[in-house]
Amino acid sequence: MAATATYPDHLRVAVDAYLAELRFSDAADLGGLEEAMRYSLLAPGKRIRPVLCMATAAALGRGPESVLPLAAAIELIHTYSLIHDDLPAMDDDELRRGRPTCHVAFGESVAILAGDALYAEAFRHIAEHQAGEPENVLAAAGRLAAATGVDGMVGGQYLDVAAVAPAGPEGLRRLHSLKTGRLIAAAIECPLRLTGAGDDARIRYGQFAAELGVLFQIVDDILDVTGTDAALGKPSGSDERHGKRTYVSEHGLERARELASRSHASARAALAAAAPAGADELEQITDFVYTRTS
Amino acid sequence: MAATATYPDHLRVAVDAYLAELRFSDAADLGGLEEAMRYSLLAPGKRIRPVLCMATAAALGRGPESVLPLAAAIELIHTYSLIHDDLPAMDDDELRRGRPTCHVAFGESVAILAGDALYAEAFRHIAEHQAGEPENVLAAAGRLAAATGVDGMVGGQYLDVAAVAPAGPEGLRRLHSLKTGRLIAAAIECPLRLTGAGDDARIRYGQFAAELGVLFQIVDDILDVTGTDAALGKPSGSDERHGKRTYVSEHGLERARELASRSHASARAALAAAAPAGADELEQITDFVYTRTS
Repeated sequence: MAATATYPDHLRVAVDAYLAELRFSDAADLGGLEEAMRYSLLAPGKRIRPVLCMATAAALGRGPESVLPLAAAIELIHTYSLIHDDLPAMDDDELRRGRPTCHVAFGESVAILAGDALYAEAFRHIAEHQAGEPENVLAAAGRLAAATGVDGMVGGQYLDVAAVAPAGPEGLRRLHSLKTGRLIAAAIECPLRLTGAGDDARIRYGQFAAELGVLFQIVDDILDVTGTDAALGKPSGSDERHGKRTYVSEHGLERARELASRSHASARAALAAAAPAGADELEQITDFVYTRTS
Repeated sequence: MAATATYPDHLRVAVDAYLAELRFSDAADLGGLEEAMRYSLLAPGKRIRPVLCMATAAALGRGPESVLPLAAAIELIHTYSLIHDDLPAMDDDELRRGRPTCHVAFGESVAILAGDALYAEAFRHIAEHQAGEPENVLAAAGRLAAATGVDGMVGGQYLDVAAVAPAGPEGLRRLHSLKTGRLIAAAIECPLRLTGAGDDARIRYGQFAAELGVLFQIVDDILDVTGTDAALGKPSGSDERHGKRTYVSEHGLERARELASRSHASARAALAAAAPAGADELEQITDFVYTRTS
Protein backbone atom coordinates (compact mmCIF):
# COMPACT_ATOMS: atom_id res chain seq x y z
CA MET A 1 0.00 0.00 0.00
CA ALA A 2 0.99 3.61 -0.49
CA ALA A 3 2.04 5.94 2.34
CA THR A 4 -0.81 6.89 4.69
CA ALA A 5 -2.95 9.55 3.03
CA THR A 6 -3.71 12.96 4.44
CA TYR A 7 -6.61 12.96 6.89
CA PRO A 8 -8.98 15.94 7.31
CA ASP A 9 -7.64 16.64 10.77
CA HIS A 10 -9.43 19.98 11.08
CA LEU A 11 -12.70 18.03 11.19
CA ARG A 12 -11.37 15.53 13.72
CA VAL A 13 -10.16 18.37 15.92
CA ALA A 14 -13.63 19.96 15.81
CA VAL A 15 -15.28 16.63 16.72
CA ASP A 16 -12.87 16.01 19.57
CA ALA A 17 -13.42 19.49 20.99
CA TYR A 18 -17.20 19.06 20.76
CA LEU A 19 -17.15 15.62 22.41
CA ALA A 20 -14.89 16.84 25.20
CA GLU A 21 -17.48 19.47 26.12
CA LEU A 22 -20.40 17.03 26.36
CA ARG A 23 -21.86 16.46 29.82
CA PHE A 24 -24.74 14.08 30.42
CA SER A 25 -25.85 14.93 33.96
CA ASP A 26 -25.18 17.46 36.71
CA ALA A 27 -26.09 14.97 39.43
CA ALA A 28 -23.17 14.05 41.70
CA ASP A 29 -24.50 10.54 42.35
CA LEU A 30 -24.45 9.78 38.61
CA GLY A 31 -20.82 10.86 38.27
CA GLY A 32 -19.57 7.27 38.12
CA LEU A 33 -21.79 6.45 35.16
CA GLU A 34 -20.80 9.62 33.34
CA GLU A 35 -17.13 8.87 34.03
CA ALA A 36 -17.43 5.42 32.42
CA MET A 37 -19.20 6.92 29.39
CA ARG A 38 -16.60 9.65 28.93
CA TYR A 39 -13.70 7.22 29.55
CA SER A 40 -14.74 5.25 26.48
CA LEU A 41 -16.01 8.18 24.43
CA LEU A 42 -12.88 10.29 24.82
CA ALA A 43 -10.31 7.57 24.19
CA PRO A 44 -8.19 8.87 21.31
CA GLY A 45 -9.40 7.81 17.88
CA LYS A 46 -9.58 8.90 14.28
CA ARG A 47 -13.32 9.68 14.61
CA ILE A 48 -13.90 8.36 11.11
CA ARG A 49 -17.72 8.25 11.39
CA PRO A 50 -18.34 11.79 12.68
CA VAL A 51 -15.64 13.14 10.36
CA LEU A 52 -17.41 11.42 7.44
CA CYS A 53 -20.65 13.05 8.54
CA MET A 54 -19.06 16.50 8.59
CA ALA A 55 -17.22 15.89 5.29
CA THR A 56 -20.50 14.89 3.64
CA ALA A 57 -22.09 18.13 4.83
CA ALA A 58 -19.15 20.01 3.32
CA ALA A 59 -19.56 18.13 0.01
CA LEU A 60 -23.19 19.28 -0.01
CA GLY A 61 -22.09 22.89 0.37
CA ARG A 62 -23.01 23.16 4.06
CA GLY A 63 -20.79 24.24 6.90
CA PRO A 64 -19.45 21.01 8.40
CA GLU A 65 -19.94 22.42 11.91
CA SER A 66 -23.69 22.63 11.23
CA VAL A 67 -23.95 18.84 11.63
CA LEU A 68 -21.79 18.53 14.76
CA PRO A 69 -24.66 17.37 17.03
CA LEU A 70 -25.53 14.60 14.56
CA ALA A 71 -21.85 13.72 14.08
CA ALA A 72 -21.32 13.53 17.85
CA ALA A 73 -24.39 11.30 18.24
CA ILE A 74 -22.93 8.90 15.68
CA GLU A 75 -19.69 8.71 17.70
CA LEU A 76 -21.69 8.10 20.91
CA ILE A 77 -23.40 5.19 19.18
CA HIS A 78 -20.12 3.83 17.83
CA THR A 79 -18.67 4.00 21.35
CA TYR A 80 -21.68 2.21 22.85
CA SER A 81 -21.28 -0.57 20.28
CA LEU A 82 -17.60 -1.01 21.18
CA ILE A 83 -18.38 -1.19 24.91
CA HIS A 84 -21.03 -3.88 24.40
CA ASP A 85 -18.92 -5.79 21.83
CA ASP A 86 -16.05 -6.00 24.32
CA LEU A 87 -18.19 -7.47 27.16
CA PRO A 88 -17.22 -10.89 28.58
CA ALA A 89 -20.40 -12.44 27.12
CA MET A 90 -19.51 -11.04 23.68
CA ASP A 91 -15.91 -10.78 22.42
CA ASP A 92 -14.43 -10.64 25.95
CA ASP A 93 -11.74 -8.12 25.00
CA GLU A 94 -9.60 -6.42 27.61
CA LEU A 95 -7.89 -3.74 25.54
CA ARG A 96 -9.42 -1.10 23.27
CA ARG A 97 -7.91 2.06 21.83
CA GLY A 98 -4.83 1.32 23.93
CA ARG A 99 -6.67 1.27 27.27
CA PRO A 100 -8.42 -1.33 29.44
CA THR A 101 -11.95 -1.87 28.07
CA CYS A 102 -14.85 -0.26 29.88
CA HIS A 103 -15.89 -3.37 31.81
CA VAL A 104 -12.30 -3.99 32.92
CA ALA A 105 -12.02 -0.43 34.20
CA PHE A 106 -15.52 0.00 35.69
CA GLY A 107 -17.07 -3.45 36.07
CA GLU A 108 -19.46 -5.32 33.83
CA SER A 109 -22.75 -3.87 35.10
CA VAL A 110 -21.55 -0.28 34.75
CA ALA A 111 -20.22 -1.04 31.26
CA ILE A 112 -23.59 -2.42 30.12
CA LEU A 113 -25.30 0.70 31.48
CA ALA A 114 -22.69 3.07 30.02
CA GLY A 115 -23.42 1.57 26.59
CA ASP A 116 -27.17 1.81 27.09
CA ALA A 117 -26.83 5.40 28.28
CA LEU A 118 -24.63 6.48 25.35
CA TYR A 119 -27.27 5.21 22.94
CA ALA A 120 -30.06 7.08 24.72
CA GLU A 121 -28.01 10.27 24.94
CA ALA A 122 -27.27 10.08 21.22
CA PHE A 123 -30.94 10.38 20.30
CA ARG A 124 -31.57 12.92 23.03
CA HIS A 125 -28.69 15.02 21.70
CA ILE A 126 -30.01 15.01 18.14
CA ALA A 127 -33.54 15.90 19.24
CA GLU A 128 -32.37 18.71 21.51
CA HIS A 129 -29.45 20.19 19.61
CA GLN A 130 -29.45 19.40 15.89
CA ALA A 131 -30.66 22.40 13.87
CA GLY A 132 -32.66 21.84 10.70
CA GLU A 133 -36.20 21.32 9.46
CA PRO A 134 -37.87 19.09 12.09
CA GLU A 135 -38.99 16.74 9.32
CA ASN A 136 -35.39 16.32 8.18
CA VAL A 137 -33.96 15.98 11.70
CA LEU A 138 -36.55 13.29 12.41
CA ALA A 139 -35.71 11.49 9.17
CA ALA A 140 -32.00 11.57 10.01
CA ALA A 141 -32.64 10.21 13.51
CA GLY A 142 -34.89 7.49 12.09
CA ARG A 143 -32.25 6.39 9.59
CA LEU A 144 -29.66 6.29 12.37
CA ALA A 145 -31.96 4.10 14.48
CA ALA A 146 -32.60 1.79 11.52
CA ALA A 147 -28.86 1.56 10.78
CA THR A 148 -28.20 0.43 14.34
CA GLY A 149 -31.16 -1.96 14.78
CA VAL A 150 -31.98 -5.51 13.69
CA ASP A 151 -31.30 -4.92 9.99
CA GLY A 152 -28.18 -2.99 10.92
CA MET A 153 -25.33 -2.88 13.41
CA VAL A 154 -26.92 -5.00 16.14
CA GLY A 155 -28.11 -7.58 13.60
CA GLY A 156 -24.55 -7.80 12.25
CA GLN A 157 -23.20 -8.31 15.74
CA TYR A 158 -25.78 -11.08 16.19
CA LEU A 159 -24.63 -12.79 12.97
CA ASP A 160 -21.09 -12.60 14.34
CA VAL A 161 -21.68 -14.00 17.84
CA ALA A 162 -24.32 -16.54 16.81
CA ALA A 163 -22.26 -17.58 13.76
CA VAL A 164 -25.37 -17.98 11.62
CA ALA A 165 -24.31 -15.96 8.56
CA PRO A 166 -24.24 -17.99 5.34
CA ALA A 167 -20.89 -19.65 4.57
CA GLY A 168 -18.51 -18.22 1.98
CA PRO A 169 -17.62 -14.71 0.80
CA GLU A 170 -21.27 -13.67 0.37
CA GLY A 171 -22.08 -14.45 4.01
CA LEU A 172 -18.98 -12.63 5.19
CA ARG A 173 -19.87 -9.59 3.12
CA ARG A 174 -23.39 -9.60 4.53
CA LEU A 175 -22.14 -9.87 8.12
CA HIS A 176 -19.82 -6.91 7.69
CA SER A 177 -22.28 -4.81 5.70
CA LEU A 178 -24.56 -4.94 8.74
CA LYS A 179 -22.03 -4.91 11.57
CA THR A 180 -19.79 -2.06 10.40
CA GLY A 181 -21.13 -0.98 7.01
CA ARG A 182 -24.51 0.33 8.08
CA LEU A 183 -23.19 2.82 10.64
CA ILE A 184 -20.50 4.05 8.25
CA ALA A 185 -23.20 4.44 5.59
CA ALA A 186 -25.42 6.26 8.11
CA ALA A 187 -22.62 8.75 8.72
CA ILE A 188 -23.03 9.69 5.04
CA GLU A 189 -26.78 9.15 4.67
CA CYS A 190 -27.88 11.08 7.77
CA PRO A 191 -26.44 14.46 6.74
CA LEU A 192 -28.09 13.96 3.33
CA ARG A 193 -31.43 13.46 5.09
CA LEU A 194 -30.74 16.40 7.33
CA THR A 195 -30.19 18.71 4.39
CA GLY A 196 -33.21 17.35 2.55
CA ALA A 197 -31.18 16.01 -0.39
CA GLY A 198 -33.21 14.38 -3.15
CA ASP A 199 -33.45 10.71 -4.13
CA ASP A 200 -30.79 11.01 -6.85
CA ALA A 201 -28.14 12.32 -4.46
CA ARG A 202 -29.14 9.76 -1.85
CA ILE A 203 -28.72 6.88 -4.30
CA ARG A 204 -25.36 8.08 -5.60
CA TYR A 205 -23.93 8.80 -2.16
CA GLY A 206 -25.42 5.50 -1.00
CA GLN A 207 -23.30 3.64 -3.55
CA PHE A 208 -20.21 5.47 -2.34
CA ALA A 209 -21.13 4.67 1.28
CA ALA A 210 -21.55 0.97 0.54
CA GLU A 211 -18.16 0.79 -1.22
CA LEU A 212 -16.46 2.71 1.57
CA GLY A 213 -17.90 0.34 4.18
CA VAL A 214 -16.53 -2.69 2.36
CA LEU A 215 -13.14 -1.03 1.94
CA PHE A 216 -13.06 -0.15 5.63
CA GLN A 217 -13.70 -3.76 6.63
CA ILE A 218 -11.20 -5.36 4.26
CA VAL A 219 -8.46 -3.03 5.51
CA ASP A 220 -9.53 -3.67 9.12
CA ASP A 221 -9.15 -7.39 8.59
CA ILE A 222 -5.72 -6.96 6.94
CA LEU A 223 -4.52 -4.71 9.76
CA ASP A 224 -5.58 -7.25 12.36
CA VAL A 225 -2.98 -9.58 10.80
CA THR A 226 -0.26 -7.11 9.77
CA GLY A 227 -0.60 -4.33 12.35
CA THR A 228 1.39 -3.96 15.55
CA ASP A 229 -0.29 -4.02 18.95
CA ALA A 230 0.91 -0.49 19.69
CA ALA A 231 -0.49 0.96 16.46
CA LEU A 232 -3.84 -0.85 16.76
CA GLY A 233 -4.36 -0.11 20.47
CA LYS A 234 -5.40 -3.72 20.92
CA PRO A 235 -3.65 -7.06 20.42
CA SER A 236 -3.19 -7.88 16.73
CA GLY A 237 -4.34 -11.31 15.56
CA SER A 238 -7.44 -11.11 17.77
CA ASP A 239 -9.73 -12.07 14.88
CA GLU A 240 -7.89 -15.36 14.46
CA ARG A 241 -7.87 -16.06 18.20
CA HIS A 242 -11.62 -15.44 18.31
CA GLY A 243 -12.12 -17.76 15.34
CA LYS A 244 -13.67 -14.88 13.38
CA ARG A 245 -14.29 -15.04 9.68
CA THR A 246 -12.42 -12.24 7.96
CA TYR A 247 -11.44 -11.25 4.44
CA VAL A 248 -7.99 -12.66 5.25
CA SER A 249 -9.24 -15.98 6.64
CA GLU A 250 -11.61 -16.30 3.69
CA HIS A 251 -9.30 -15.18 0.86
CA GLY A 252 -5.72 -15.13 2.17
CA LEU A 253 -3.64 -11.98 2.70
CA GLU A 254 -2.52 -11.36 -0.87
CA ARG A 255 -6.02 -11.69 -2.32
CA ALA A 256 -7.42 -9.50 0.47
CA ARG A 257 -4.92 -6.80 -0.52
CA GLU A 258 -6.07 -7.04 -4.13
CA LEU A 259 -9.68 -6.75 -3.01
CA ALA A 260 -8.82 -3.67 -0.96
CA SER A 261 -7.18 -2.05 -3.96
CA ARG A 262 -10.20 -2.78 -6.14
CA SER A 263 -12.60 -1.64 -3.46
CA HIS A 264 -10.67 1.62 -3.09
CA ALA A 265 -10.94 2.28 -6.82
CA SER A 266 -14.69 1.54 -6.74
CA ALA A 267 -15.21 3.87 -3.79
CA ARG A 268 -13.32 6.69 -5.51
CA ALA A 269 -15.33 6.16 -8.72
CA ALA A 270 -18.63 6.16 -6.80
CA LEU A 271 -17.60 9.33 -5.00
CA ALA A 272 -16.71 11.03 -8.28
CA ALA A 273 -20.19 10.15 -9.56
CA ALA A 274 -21.87 11.46 -6.39
CA ALA A 275 -19.84 14.69 -6.21
CA PRO A 276 -18.73 15.50 -9.76
CA ALA A 277 -17.40 18.92 -8.71
CA GLY A 278 -15.10 17.23 -6.19
CA ALA A 279 -15.31 16.63 -2.45
CA ASP A 280 -11.88 17.17 -0.91
CA GLU A 281 -12.47 15.79 2.57
CA LEU A 282 -14.45 12.76 1.40
CA GLU A 283 -11.67 11.95 -1.07
CA GLN A 284 -9.09 12.27 1.70
CA ILE A 285 -11.07 9.99 4.00
CA THR A 286 -11.46 7.40 1.24
CA ASP A 287 -7.72 7.37 0.61
CA PHE A 288 -7.00 7.33 4.32
CA VAL A 289 -9.29 4.35 4.96
CA TYR A 290 -7.31 2.49 2.29
CA THR A 291 -3.80 3.46 3.41
CA ARG A 292 -4.19 3.68 7.19
CA THR A 293 -1.92 1.56 9.39
CA SER A 294 -4.11 1.45 12.51
CA MET B 1 -56.47 -2.55 50.03
CA ALA B 2 -59.73 -2.57 48.12
CA ALA B 3 -60.59 -5.12 45.46
CA THR B 4 -58.57 -4.78 42.27
CA ALA B 5 -59.97 -1.90 40.23
CA THR B 6 -61.23 -2.13 36.68
CA TYR B 7 -58.46 -1.89 34.09
CA PRO B 8 -58.97 -0.33 30.64
CA ASP B 9 -58.62 -3.69 28.95
CA HIS B 10 -59.76 -2.42 25.56
CA LEU B 11 -56.55 -0.39 25.40
CA ARG B 12 -54.40 -3.33 26.53
CA VAL B 13 -56.02 -5.52 23.87
CA ALA B 14 -55.22 -2.91 21.21
CA VAL B 15 -51.60 -2.70 22.39
CA ASP B 16 -51.21 -6.49 22.45
CA ALA B 17 -52.63 -6.83 18.95
CA TYR B 18 -50.31 -4.10 17.67
CA LEU B 19 -47.22 -5.60 19.31
CA ALA B 20 -48.05 -9.08 18.01
CA GLU B 21 -47.98 -7.73 14.44
CA LEU B 22 -44.56 -6.10 14.76
CA ARG B 23 -41.75 -7.62 12.72
CA PHE B 24 -38.23 -6.28 12.78
CA SER B 25 -36.56 -8.01 9.83
CA ASP B 26 -37.40 -10.24 6.89
CA ALA B 27 -33.94 -11.79 6.86
CA ALA B 28 -33.90 -15.51 7.70
CA ASP B 29 -30.46 -15.36 9.28
CA LEU B 30 -31.68 -12.75 11.79
CA GLY B 31 -34.61 -14.91 12.85
CA GLY B 32 -32.93 -15.96 16.10
CA LEU B 33 -32.47 -12.36 17.19
CA GLU B 34 -36.04 -11.47 16.30
CA GLU B 35 -37.26 -14.54 18.17
CA ALA B 36 -35.48 -13.45 21.36
CA MET B 37 -36.91 -9.94 21.03
CA ARG B 38 -40.45 -11.18 20.48
CA TYR B 39 -40.12 -13.80 23.25
CA SER B 40 -39.59 -11.04 25.79
CA LEU B 41 -41.84 -8.45 24.16
CA LEU B 42 -44.87 -10.73 23.87
CA ALA B 43 -44.74 -12.26 27.35
CA PRO B 44 -48.15 -11.53 28.89
CA GLY B 45 -48.30 -8.30 30.85
CA LYS B 46 -50.61 -5.47 31.85
CA ARG B 47 -48.88 -3.09 29.38
CA ILE B 48 -49.26 -0.26 31.89
CA ARG B 49 -46.90 2.14 30.08
CA PRO B 50 -48.40 1.93 26.57
CA VAL B 51 -51.93 1.85 28.02
CA LEU B 52 -51.07 5.03 29.96
CA CYS B 53 -49.86 6.59 26.73
CA MET B 54 -53.11 5.75 24.95
CA ALA B 55 -55.24 6.81 27.93
CA THR B 56 -53.46 10.17 28.00
CA ALA B 57 -54.25 10.68 24.32
CA ALA B 58 -57.91 9.89 25.11
CA ALA B 59 -57.89 12.39 27.99
CA LEU B 60 -56.64 15.01 25.51
CA GLY B 61 -59.56 14.26 23.20
CA ARG B 62 -57.53 12.28 20.66
CA GLY B 63 -58.21 8.79 19.44
CA PRO B 64 -56.06 6.52 21.61
CA GLU B 65 -55.13 4.46 18.54
CA SER B 66 -53.49 7.53 17.05
CA VAL B 67 -50.56 7.12 19.44
CA LEU B 68 -50.13 3.35 19.04
CA PRO B 69 -46.68 3.60 17.38
CA LEU B 70 -45.42 5.75 20.26
CA ALA B 71 -47.09 3.50 22.84
CA ALA B 72 -45.55 0.40 21.27
CA ALA B 73 -42.11 2.05 21.26
CA ILE B 74 -42.45 2.68 25.00
CA GLU B 75 -43.20 -1.01 25.58
CA LEU B 76 -40.21 -1.99 23.42
CA ILE B 77 -38.04 0.19 25.64
CA HIS B 78 -39.57 -1.21 28.83
CA THR B 79 -38.88 -4.73 27.55
CA TYR B 80 -35.28 -3.89 26.69
CA SER B 81 -34.77 -2.53 30.21
CA LEU B 82 -36.13 -5.75 31.75
CA ILE B 83 -33.84 -7.91 29.59
CA HIS B 84 -30.75 -5.93 30.57
CA ASP B 85 -31.79 -5.68 34.26
CA ASP B 86 -32.11 -9.47 34.43
CA LEU B 87 -28.61 -10.16 33.04
CA PRO B 88 -26.16 -12.12 35.21
CA ALA B 89 -23.98 -9.01 35.62
CA MET B 90 -27.01 -7.03 36.81
CA ASP B 91 -29.78 -8.59 38.95
CA ASP B 92 -29.09 -12.14 37.68
CA ASP B 93 -32.78 -13.10 37.59
CA GLU B 94 -33.93 -16.33 35.98
CA LEU B 95 -37.69 -15.78 35.92
CA ARG B 96 -39.68 -12.87 34.48
CA ARG B 97 -43.38 -12.63 33.65
CA GLY B 98 -43.64 -16.33 34.50
CA ARG B 99 -41.02 -17.46 31.97
CA PRO B 100 -37.27 -18.03 31.92
CA THR B 101 -35.55 -14.67 31.40
CA CYS B 102 -34.19 -13.85 27.96
CA HIS B 103 -30.57 -14.78 28.75
CA VAL B 104 -31.66 -18.09 30.26
CA ALA B 105 -33.66 -18.92 27.15
CA PHE B 106 -31.33 -17.56 24.46
CA GLY B 107 -27.91 -17.04 26.06
CA GLU B 108 -26.30 -13.93 27.45
CA SER B 109 -24.87 -12.48 24.25
CA VAL B 110 -28.17 -12.76 22.39
CA ALA B 111 -30.01 -11.21 25.35
CA ILE B 112 -27.68 -8.19 25.40
CA LEU B 113 -28.23 -7.75 21.65
CA ALA B 114 -32.00 -8.30 21.89
CA GLY B 115 -32.15 -5.45 24.41
CA ASP B 116 -29.97 -3.20 22.26
CA ALA B 117 -32.08 -4.00 19.20
CA LEU B 118 -35.40 -3.32 20.95
CA TYR B 119 -34.15 0.12 21.91
CA ALA B 120 -33.04 0.91 18.36
CA GLU B 121 -36.29 -0.39 16.87
CA ALA B 122 -38.29 1.78 19.30
CA PHE B 123 -36.84 4.98 17.87
CA ARG B 124 -36.99 3.65 14.34
CA HIS B 125 -40.65 2.82 14.81
CA ILE B 126 -41.53 6.29 16.06
CA ALA B 127 -39.65 7.99 13.23
CA GLU B 128 -41.19 5.77 10.56
CA HIS B 129 -44.74 5.26 11.82
CA GLN B 130 -45.90 7.88 14.33
CA ALA B 131 -48.19 10.42 12.65
CA GLY B 132 -48.12 14.04 13.78
CA GLU B 133 -46.37 17.33 13.16
CA PRO B 134 -42.69 16.41 12.64
CA GLU B 135 -41.72 18.99 15.27
CA ASN B 136 -43.98 17.27 17.81
CA VAL B 137 -42.93 13.73 16.89
CA LEU B 138 -39.31 14.79 17.26
CA ALA B 139 -40.03 16.40 20.64
CA ALA B 140 -41.78 13.24 21.86
CA ALA B 141 -38.88 11.06 20.72
CA GLY B 142 -36.41 13.41 22.38
CA ARG B 143 -38.28 13.29 25.69
CA LEU B 144 -38.39 9.51 25.50
CA ALA B 145 -34.63 9.39 24.94
CA ALA B 146 -34.05 11.77 27.86
CA ALA B 147 -36.33 9.72 30.12
CA THR B 148 -34.29 6.60 29.39
CA GLY B 149 -30.79 8.12 29.53
CA VAL B 150 -28.39 9.20 32.27
CA ASP B 151 -30.86 11.46 34.08
CA GLY B 152 -33.54 8.79 33.64
CA MET B 153 -34.06 5.05 33.59
CA VAL B 154 -30.45 3.99 32.98
CA GLY B 155 -29.19 6.45 35.60
CA GLY B 156 -31.66 4.94 38.10
CA GLN B 157 -30.45 1.46 37.28
CA TYR B 158 -26.90 2.69 37.86
CA LEU B 159 -27.84 4.09 41.28
CA ASP B 160 -29.32 0.68 42.07
CA VAL B 161 -26.43 -1.54 41.00
CA ALA B 162 -23.67 0.80 42.13
CA ALA B 163 -25.51 1.52 45.40
CA VAL B 164 -24.47 5.17 45.38
CA ALA B 165 -27.87 6.82 45.99
CA PRO B 166 -27.99 8.92 49.18
CA ALA B 167 -29.10 7.03 52.32
CA GLY B 168 -32.62 7.39 53.72
CA PRO B 169 -36.05 7.90 52.18
CA GLU B 170 -34.90 10.80 49.98
CA GLY B 171 -32.25 8.65 48.32
CA LEU B 172 -34.72 5.82 47.80
CA ARG B 173 -37.24 8.17 46.25
CA ARG B 174 -34.61 9.56 43.92
CA LEU B 175 -33.48 6.10 42.83
CA HIS B 176 -37.01 5.06 41.98
CA SER B 177 -37.97 8.35 40.37
CA LEU B 178 -35.21 7.71 37.85
CA LYS B 179 -35.36 3.92 37.53
CA THR B 180 -39.10 3.46 37.09
CA GLY B 181 -40.67 6.91 37.45
CA ARG B 182 -39.15 8.56 34.40
CA LEU B 183 -40.43 6.01 31.87
CA ILE B 184 -43.90 5.98 33.45
CA ALA B 185 -43.87 9.78 33.31
CA ALA B 186 -42.72 9.65 29.69
CA ALA B 187 -45.74 7.49 28.84
CA ILE B 188 -47.83 10.50 29.88
CA GLU B 189 -45.52 13.30 28.75
CA CYS B 190 -44.79 11.97 25.25
CA PRO B 191 -48.41 12.01 23.99
CA LEU B 192 -48.70 15.55 25.38
CA ARG B 193 -45.68 16.54 23.30
CA LEU B 194 -47.05 14.69 20.32
CA THR B 195 -50.31 16.62 20.42
CA GLY B 196 -48.51 19.91 20.97
CA ALA B 197 -50.08 20.51 24.40
CA GLY B 198 -49.08 23.78 26.07
CA ASP B 199 -46.90 24.36 29.13
CA ASP B 200 -49.86 24.51 31.54
CA ALA B 201 -51.14 21.08 30.58
CA ARG B 202 -47.62 19.66 30.62
CA ILE B 203 -47.01 20.92 34.16
CA ARG B 204 -50.34 19.62 35.52
CA TYR B 205 -50.03 16.23 33.85
CA GLY B 206 -46.40 16.16 34.95
CA GLN B 207 -47.49 16.36 38.59
CA PHE B 208 -49.91 13.51 38.05
CA ALA B 209 -47.20 11.48 36.33
CA ALA B 210 -44.76 12.01 39.21
CA GLU B 211 -47.35 10.92 41.79
CA LEU B 212 -48.34 7.90 39.74
CA GLY B 213 -44.70 6.82 39.43
CA VAL B 214 -44.22 6.95 43.21
CA LEU B 215 -47.47 5.04 43.78
CA PHE B 216 -46.42 2.40 41.27
CA GLN B 217 -43.11 1.82 43.04
CA ILE B 218 -44.52 1.68 46.59
CA VAL B 219 -47.08 -0.91 45.51
CA ASP B 220 -44.38 -2.82 43.62
CA ASP B 221 -42.27 -3.00 46.76
CA ILE B 222 -45.26 -4.15 48.86
CA LEU B 223 -46.18 -6.83 46.31
CA ASP B 224 -42.63 -8.17 46.33
CA VAL B 225 -43.22 -9.02 50.00
CA THR B 226 -46.91 -9.97 49.99
CA GLY B 227 -47.44 -11.35 46.48
CA THR B 228 -47.32 -14.99 45.46
CA ASP B 229 -44.75 -16.28 42.99
CA ALA B 230 -47.50 -17.33 40.60
CA ALA B 231 -49.21 -13.93 40.59
CA LEU B 232 -45.96 -12.00 40.22
CA GLY B 233 -44.49 -14.25 37.52
CA LYS B 234 -41.19 -14.16 39.42
CA PRO B 235 -40.10 -15.27 42.90
CA SER B 236 -41.51 -13.00 45.61
CA GLY B 237 -39.06 -11.65 48.16
CA SER B 238 -36.45 -11.08 45.45
CA ASP B 239 -35.82 -7.50 46.58
CA GLU B 240 -34.77 -8.72 50.03
CA ARG B 241 -32.59 -11.48 48.61
CA HIS B 242 -30.87 -8.94 46.37
CA GLY B 243 -30.35 -6.63 49.36
CA LYS B 244 -32.37 -3.92 47.58
CA ARG B 245 -33.63 -0.85 49.36
CA THR B 246 -37.40 -0.68 49.07
CA TYR B 247 -40.25 1.26 50.64
CA VAL B 248 -40.85 -1.82 52.82
CA SER B 249 -37.23 -2.22 53.93
CA GLU B 250 -37.02 1.51 54.61
CA HIS B 251 -40.40 2.05 56.32
CA GLY B 252 -41.84 -1.37 57.25
CA LEU B 253 -44.91 -2.92 55.63
CA GLU B 254 -47.63 -1.06 57.54
CA ARG B 255 -46.09 2.34 56.94
CA ALA B 256 -45.52 1.47 53.27
CA ARG B 257 -49.24 0.70 52.99
CA GLU B 258 -50.09 4.09 54.48
CA LEU B 259 -47.73 5.76 52.05
CA ALA B 260 -49.41 3.94 49.16
CA SER B 261 -52.83 5.12 50.31
CA ARG B 262 -51.62 8.70 50.57
CA SER B 263 -49.83 8.51 47.25
CA HIS B 264 -52.98 7.17 45.59
CA ALA B 265 -55.01 10.11 46.93
CA SER B 266 -52.36 12.56 45.71
CA ALA B 267 -52.31 10.99 42.26
CA ARG B 268 -56.10 11.16 41.97
CA ALA B 269 -56.07 14.81 43.08
CA ALA B 270 -53.33 15.69 40.59
CA LEU B 271 -55.26 13.95 37.83
CA ALA B 272 -58.45 15.85 38.71
CA ALA B 273 -56.47 19.09 38.43
CA ALA B 274 -54.97 18.06 35.07
CA ALA B 275 -58.23 16.80 33.56
CA PRO B 276 -61.06 18.66 35.33
CA ALA B 277 -63.66 17.27 32.91
CA GLY B 278 -62.65 13.74 33.89
CA ALA B 279 -60.39 11.13 32.29
CA ASP B 280 -61.97 7.69 32.66
CA GLU B 281 -59.10 5.49 31.59
CA LEU B 282 -56.44 7.44 33.49
CA GLU B 283 -58.60 7.23 36.63
CA GLN B 284 -58.98 3.49 36.14
CA ILE B 285 -55.24 3.02 35.70
CA THR B 286 -54.51 5.07 38.81
CA ASP B 287 -56.88 2.94 40.87
CA PHE B 288 -55.55 -0.22 39.32
CA VAL B 289 -51.94 0.65 40.08
CA TYR B 290 -52.99 1.05 43.72
CA THR B 291 -55.11 -2.09 44.05
CA ARG B 292 -53.30 -4.54 41.74
CA THR B 293 -52.12 -7.84 43.19
CA SER B 294 -49.38 -8.59 40.67
